[in-house]
Amino acid sequence: MSASMSPRHHVVIIGSGFGGLFAAKRLKRADVDVTVISRTTHHLFQPLLYQVATGILSEGEVAPATREILRRRKDIRVILGEVTDIDLATHIVTSVAGEGTTTTHYDSLIVAAGATTSYFGHDEFEGHATGLKSIDDALELRGRILSAFEFAELTEDEHERDEWLTFAVVGAGATGVEMAGQISELARRTLVKDYRRIDTRQTRIVLIDALDDVLGTFGTKLSAGAAKQLQMLGIEVWLNERVVGVDDRGLTVEDQSGKRTRVPTRTIVWAAGVQASGLARTLAAQSGAELDRSGRVKVRPDVTLPGHPEVFVIGDMMTLNDLPGVAQVAIQQGKYAADEIRRRLDRKPDLPPFKYFDKGSMATISRFRAVASIGPLRFGGFAAWVLWLVVHIMYLVGFKNRVTTVFHWAVSFLGRGRAQRATTQHHLLGPHAGQGLQVPDAPTASKTSH
Amino acid sequence: MSASMSPRHHVVIIGSGFGGLFAAKRLKRADVDVTVISRTTHHLFQPLLYQVATGILSEGEVAPATREILRRRKDIRVILGEVTDIDLATHIVTSVAGEGTTTTHYDSLIVAAGATTSYFGHDEFEGHATGLKSIDDALELRGRILSAFEFAELTEDEHERDEWLTFAVVGAGATGVEMAGQISELARRTLVKDYRRIDTRQTRIVLIDALDDVLGTFGTKLSAGAAKQLQMLGIEVWLNERVVGVDDRGLTVEDQSGKRTRVPTRTIVWAAGVQASGLARTLAAQSGAELDRSGRVKVRPDVTLPGHPEVFVIGDMMTLNDLPGVAQVAIQQGKYAADEIRRRLDRKPDLPPFKYFDKGSMATISRFRAVASIGPLRFGGFAAWVLWLVVHIMYLVGFKNRVTTVFHWAVSFLGRGRAQRATTQHHLLGPHAGQGLQVPDAPTASKTSH
Repeated sequence: MSASMSPRHHVVIIGSGFGGLFAAKRLKRADVDVTVISRTTHHLFQPLLYQVATGILSEGEVAPATREILRRRKDIRVILGEVTDIDLATHIVTSVAGEGTTTTHYDSLIVAAGATTSYFGHDEFEGHATGLKSIDDALELRGRILSAFEFAELTEDEHERDEWLTFAVVGAGATGVEMAGQISELARRTLVKDYRRIDTRQTRIVLIDALDDVLGTFGTKLSAGAAKQLQMLGIEVWLNERVVGVDDRGLTVEDQSGKRTRVPTRTIVWAAGVQASGLARTLAAQSGAELDRSGRVKVRPDVTLPGHPEVFVIGDMMTLNDLPGVAQVAIQQGKYAADEIRRRLDRKPDLPPFKYFDKGSMATISRFRAVASIGPLRFGGFAAWVLWLVVHIMYLVGFKNRVTTVFHWAVSFLGRGRAQRATTQHHLLGPHAGQGLQVPDAPTASKTSH
Repeated sequence: MSASMSPRHHVVIIGSGFGGLFAAKRLKRADVDVTVISRTTHHLFQPLLYQVATGILSEGEVAPATREILRRRKDIRVILGEVTDIDLATHIVTSVAGEGTTTTHYDSLIVAAGATTSYFGHDEFEGHATGLKSIDDALELRGRILSAFEFAELTEDEHERDEWLTFAVVGAGATGVEMAGQISELARRTLVKDYRRIDTRQTRIVLIDALDDVLGTFGTKLSAGAAKQLQMLGIEVWLNERVVGVDDRGLTVEDQSGKRTRVPTRTIVWAAGVQASGLARTLAAQSGAELDRSGRVKVRPDVTLPGHPEVFVIGDMMTLNDLPGVAQVAIQQGKYAADEIRRRLDRKPDLPPFKYFDKGSMATISRFRAVASIGPLRFGGFAAWVLWLVVHIMYLVGFKNRVTTVFHWAVSFLGRGRAQRATTQHHLLGPHAGQGLQVPDAPTASKTSH
């Protein structure tokens, strides 16, 4: 089929995250056809992904099917595919899924492909330090974290046990703080009575950041408060320490004076950085747009690609006025792009440049403790946590699963339980899983239990 | 440590399924120490696994952590490990997990390692036909089934679309019937409004069995009724057809006259047979016990290994008096073994031979429809379904998650939704997932959407 067969203006949206989904929703009743191309079939509610990684929620609760959300919108087609090329000259998007290749012609294009974990050029870290950007990442981390306690219980080697009972979280932004806090809750509440040889309360959690505060974006006062709360949870907070080496037995950090310190650990959570989807490079190469250090496209004030007013680049893929990489930016840019497309079709004047309305930000530290920054207001503790709860429940009500989610929260915040401790076999037998039953050639230690 | 350091009689249980778990529970307050060795950290409620595979329940709901269930039993140690050897002469069990090997000495041993999917000697079927015995299997099947609709929506090749919209279920026992019924519900209720090009109601589901009835163990009358109900759900029931070939584009069956028929399909559920854990062979080789065709150990009437009264072999790993491979047999044998061990320590006379008390069996066909066989009673339809619901809720109350499970059932039985449609990325981009972004060398078809 050729594009000329399409009688209506065709908007192609790449990505089903916050930016892509809200752009699609906003195009309701516009005189356009919409195609959403995504490499996943779900919309991922990333701010709660850490709860999947730590066994509070199931993957279905944070990842409703995109086509289910958009079911009533007969003007929208959702297709599965990883976009491998965008041809700005011919307006063709190429995507692959399975054995097939799909090409899609657009009149307007909204590129909202997000970002992936960045190891700052150290790709060799990836196998040892797991990021938290996808359902796969969350299930991988859940398996690694819960298995660590299993291996600690098994080993009779004291050093090895200490390694398994040490967790390093790299990056003290919201995700890092939330992961450190939840690992602490797992170790000091959920799992306390489950083991016989190890005392999970002895678990060591080290939160590491190259900068000089935790939750830096929340301002000095809240940062200091958050650091103190983390320390009260038994979490070591190491600031101004840069990770210079990662292997399967630990990591090495370097402070500003060049002094190196080793953290022996088997489990490393990498919440340190993101890099834009590789599609940013594809767009830059053809348009001459600049990329910043994180590979994000420098967009025009109306979030379009320079020289290509028909191409919008939104969310974590773009950089503009130092906007933070948060859901609200992507959502507001998605709506802005949709509105702008609609105005053009209606031959109305262009919108004024995109302006971000900061609704505030929040991060939970543990149950009952959070920090919030809303306009001039900055506060922490229980009040911030209640606000976090209300805002997230309200948001989820827009989708699905809120009843079970609220129930799972009650179980884990009021009780000690976690509903989702099941992991795949793959993780549980460690590095040799899936390799059959052979006893490894060189076991590190032969142990006799009982 | 040597075994002589253990002052108490040591019972080692291999497996955390129905047999192993109930044996461990039954040893409460016995004068023994118990070690449970399992290759998973969860107790799997297998009868509901098909609901994980079809997006109704999350994995955590059917797989509570074994150590959480046994948390209060300080006499029980639970350790992770795949048992690689049992030495009957020295009473040593060897297990591996990760890089480590663990050896455990037993005084009494209960082997309850269960069964895995059997392809009846056709191991080459495995890559194309997924069994349903573990959490991994269920998530694999969920990904394959939901992705099939995605690929059907994507392709412009009519034959390929038909292949994606055809599902073959091999084996018309309870699991096969339940899977076929739920795929039908997915296609004809849950997904109906989600796609634009395909009509999911056109989905073809073929349920295949080499024998001459569905749910054979329920008797002729219920079998005929079940077959009729399946057909009313639009499921083709092919009986007396043996699967003789499986590949990535379909399967071939052969009837009793030797006539072969091809079913072009991309998704095959293998619910046809099981084979006992390989540990059965280990036990047979050392004891001279016989194995049956499914690799199960022929045990003595007290479910012990011939010549080894200290070794009990229970559940799906053993064969005795043609007992069926169901949860109740494993549960009752687990309790029996525990009671016998306790009597021996108390120097009481041995129990009479194991006798199975058949509490009846049930299988759901779809929502509101089931068949039940309880003593002389055999009935189907809504009454059987209500009974199924009550029995399963009561059983789950013994563990966890019952509130959310009941809620998820309400959503999926009364409404059209499914809470768990999220799948891992691995499944969604098909055979080339995880191989980077390259366009496959030989795409089957180049397609243009819109």
